[in-house]
Amino acid sequence: MTEDDTRTKVAAAERAALKLATLPDAERSAALHDVADAIDAERERVLEANERDVTEAEALLEQGEYSQALVDRLDLAGGKLDSIVEMVRSVAEQEDPLGRTLSARHLDDDLDLYKQSVPIGVIGTVFESRPDALVQIAALSLKSGNAVILKGGSEAAHSNRALYEIIVEATADRPDGWAQLIEAREDVDRLLGMDEAVDLLMPRGSSEFVQYIQDNTSIPVLGHTEGVCHVFVDREADLEMAGEVALDAKVQYPAVCNAVETLLVHADVAADFLPGMVGTYREHDVTLRGCERTREVVDVAAATEANWSSEYGDLELDIRVVDSLVDAVDHVNTHGSKHTESVITEDADRAGRFMRGVDSASVFHNASTRFADGYRYGLGAEVGISTGKTHARGPVGLEGLTTYKWYLEGDGQLVGTYAGDDPRPFRHEAFDGEWSPGRLSGE
Amino acid sequence: MTEDDTRTKVAAAERAALKLATLPDAERSAALHDVADAIDAERERVLEANERDVTEAEALLEQGEYSQALVDRLDLAGGKLDSIVEMVRSVAEQEDPLGRTLSARHLDDDLDLYKQSVPIGVIGTVFESRPDALVQIAALSLKSGNAVILKGGSEAAHSNRALYEIIVEATADRPDGWAQLIEAREDVDRLLGMDEAVDLLMPRGSSEFVQYIQDNTSIPVLGHTEGVCHVFVDREADLEMAGEVALDAKVQYPAVCNAVETLLVHADVAADFLPGMVGTYREHDVTLRGCERTREVVDVAAATEANWSSEYGDLELDIRVVDSLVDAVDHVNTHGSKHTESVITEDADRAGRFMRGVDSASVFHNASTRFADGYRYGLGAEVGISTGKTHARGPVGLEGLTTYKWYLEGDGQLVGTYAGDDPRPFRHEAFDGEWSPGRLSGE
Repeated sequence: MTEDDTRTKVAAAERAALKLATLPDAERSAALHDVADAIDAERERVLEANERDVTEAEALLEQGEYSQALVDRLDLAGGKLDSIVEMVRSVAEQEDPLGRTLSARHLDDDLDLYKQSVPIGVIGTVFESRPDALVQIAALSLKSGNAVILKGGSEAAHSNRALYEIIVEATADRPDGWAQLIEAREDVDRLLGMDEAVDLLMPRGSSEFVQYIQDNTSIPVLGHTEGVCHVFVDREADLEMAGEVALDAKVQYPAVCNAVETLLVHADVAADFLPGMVGTYREHDVTLRGCERTREVVDVAAATEANWSSEYGDLELDIRVVDSLVDAVDHVNTHGSKHTESVITEDADRAGRFMRGVDSASVFHNASTRFADGYRYGLGAEVGISTGKTHARGPVGLEGLTTYKWYLEGDGQLVGTYAGDDPRPFRHEAFDGEWSPGRLSGE
Repeated sequence: MTEDDTRTKVAAAERAALKLATLPDAERSAALHDVADAIDAERERVLEANERDVTEAEALLEQGEYSQALVDRLDLAGGKLDSIVEMVRSVAEQEDPLGRTLSARHLDDDLDLYKQSVPIGVIGTVFESRPDALVQIAALSLKSGNAVILKGGSEAAHSNRALYEIIVEATADRPDGWAQLIEAREDVDRLLGMDEAVDLLMPRGSSEFVQYIQDNTSIPVLGHTEGVCHVFVDREADLEMAGEVALDAKVQYPAVCNAVETLLVHADVAADFLPGMVGTYREHDVTLRGCERTREVVDVAAATEANWSSEYGDLELDIRVVDSLVDAVDHVNTHGSKHTESVITEDADRAGRFMRGVDSASVFHNASTRFADGYRYGLGAEVGISTGKTHARGPVGLEGLTTYKWYLEGDGQLVGTYAGDDPRPFRHEAFDGEWSPGRLSGE
């Protein structure tokens, strides 16, 4: 694709975004049900395209270039298409994130200010090899009234193209151009320079890739580079609970960003807790490293300074013994990635100090870090998890794809009236009300 | 200042931010009242420093390097210190923006998720020559629990330093280091590279300067480059009201970003409206340009294509006649800067179509664009106006300086329970409740 082709697609998305912003929820939701119907009806077409991707991936697997896990993620055989159709319908049924009155204030008599949720505009997304990611991101974008530029992994190229075409056919004219597919890496680089047209970038992928995006664009970026999550076993912990949570947080699905990478243990309970915990981890094939004080209690390899800030995404874990809750908080704030942490303690006050003290998107008390997820949070679905601290933090659902507009209804008010030597005062009085453009002069 | 000095200051701000995040509102507000008292008590010190800035600026004014307007903005003589003291007290008295429960949801029995507002962390600000800007930004940062790096204009160096020192002395240990002053342009460049430490940049100044910041950092930037605002006089407008609003929006304070730069007039009322309007503008020394169709009705200079996207910040205005509401919306979305627009019409439906259709932070019906301002909106005070579409849009007050954290209270729940072949379902039920870290196992 040439530079001009990319610009044409992005310009079409910009035009579509302005139309989408005025489309009522009923139409956006109906379009999504049509997408679900179309995917359901065109299973053959999707599976045929998917088989080509899987066959190509299996060839590369044999050459040692891909992992079995990647091939598994790619494969849409089995019940995966059912869940995709189901997911689109569930997004359609979510409460409308647009048109919500976030605040309403009488500035003066007949001068009312409303803050109302609206779509962001054009969202650029780059995502990994699972073809269901394309459908999920497109569905969330349409429901939230945003136009979207989609760039999937090259491994899933055939599946993505088939799904994209089905989505576009099912939503023709509602409005045209709201979803755009780009396929080459150089298109992504062009996208990074289009800060006049693209309002938000949401990359998902390796740390290096997300970092590359952040370093090479002035468009706001939502996402996370790393998930270095912690479980802190406090001196007041229920040690049985601590063992169960620490195990679930590591082994239930180690490849994901909300799995724990470092276990912090209060010195007062280290001797009681660690021997049993280490035994349990070993039964689950977890490779362990520890600080010097951990190694005084259990026989594990020595952790290096670099280990404390490493994301493994695998059955590996580092253990550190800390002298106090303050030291645990300091460790997290120094070595963590502001993603998700959990404290295990029976002391509510100590839980609060840890939870307020660590500067992370999600902080849990007596629960596994693995709960940090848009679906589990009840957000319906997620477009990603953000470790940035502006706009949206943690799991990002439909609400994270909205911004707001200020609507002011007057009857001819001038600022001159409220300025100068004898200024009229403002009322500034909050009230319950929805914006509708009804104020007429003299009313 | 060396690279190391800048790093030391930013590191101190980072440490202070973690402490500030746990400080109750009573302490933050008390610290602000102490700042107000200290500025009140040390008027001499401030005015002496300010006199040095004003004297230096007047010398440069004589050499033709500065404008009288700049010297006036700089000067704190007269009642300006009173308003500064008053402003700090009013920020102290604002409702606490932190600790607000934004949502609460039962994920399951004894598994409750809270979304609560928290400070962003470390905010870097670069602002223009008015020394009251330093106090305002520092006050809003402290109230919202954020550490702040302050860089003011070099014209106000003595005033800024005096005010900064008084603020720091008045807030010593609450916590130390929460406000940091940097003074050289190269310190700003160093700041732009510190994306690990600085969470948000808020530049105020010329379009070129804000654009430079946006292009040279991967830190999120909040602000606006331009204010190309429009008033659209619809065919259903009350033309008397239209004339008053269009005049106020241009001449009440032409130097600011929410002043109108382009007047759009529906073709049906152009002949009725424009002759009188042009006469009124001329009485107020406004330089006018117009499109060809404007020039058929009134005698003004021809506008060029570049004029439509120009911000004058002065008594200059461009006029365009449009055939329809749709053309007016298109003009704004093509040439505007997403800042503030106003439609003058007696037809509520047409007002709604314009207001929904234009993609700007603030859209008004029958009111002057000059109302787009944090104080007038009732936000207490503003740190700036954002034309970006993520995080905060339009006038930004205390709320724009916050983000949120997700707090989950459990009693040992594991994700394994909610996954696999026989997964336990989630409840996902919203409830009214405030987070307090009280859930203990077995309770």
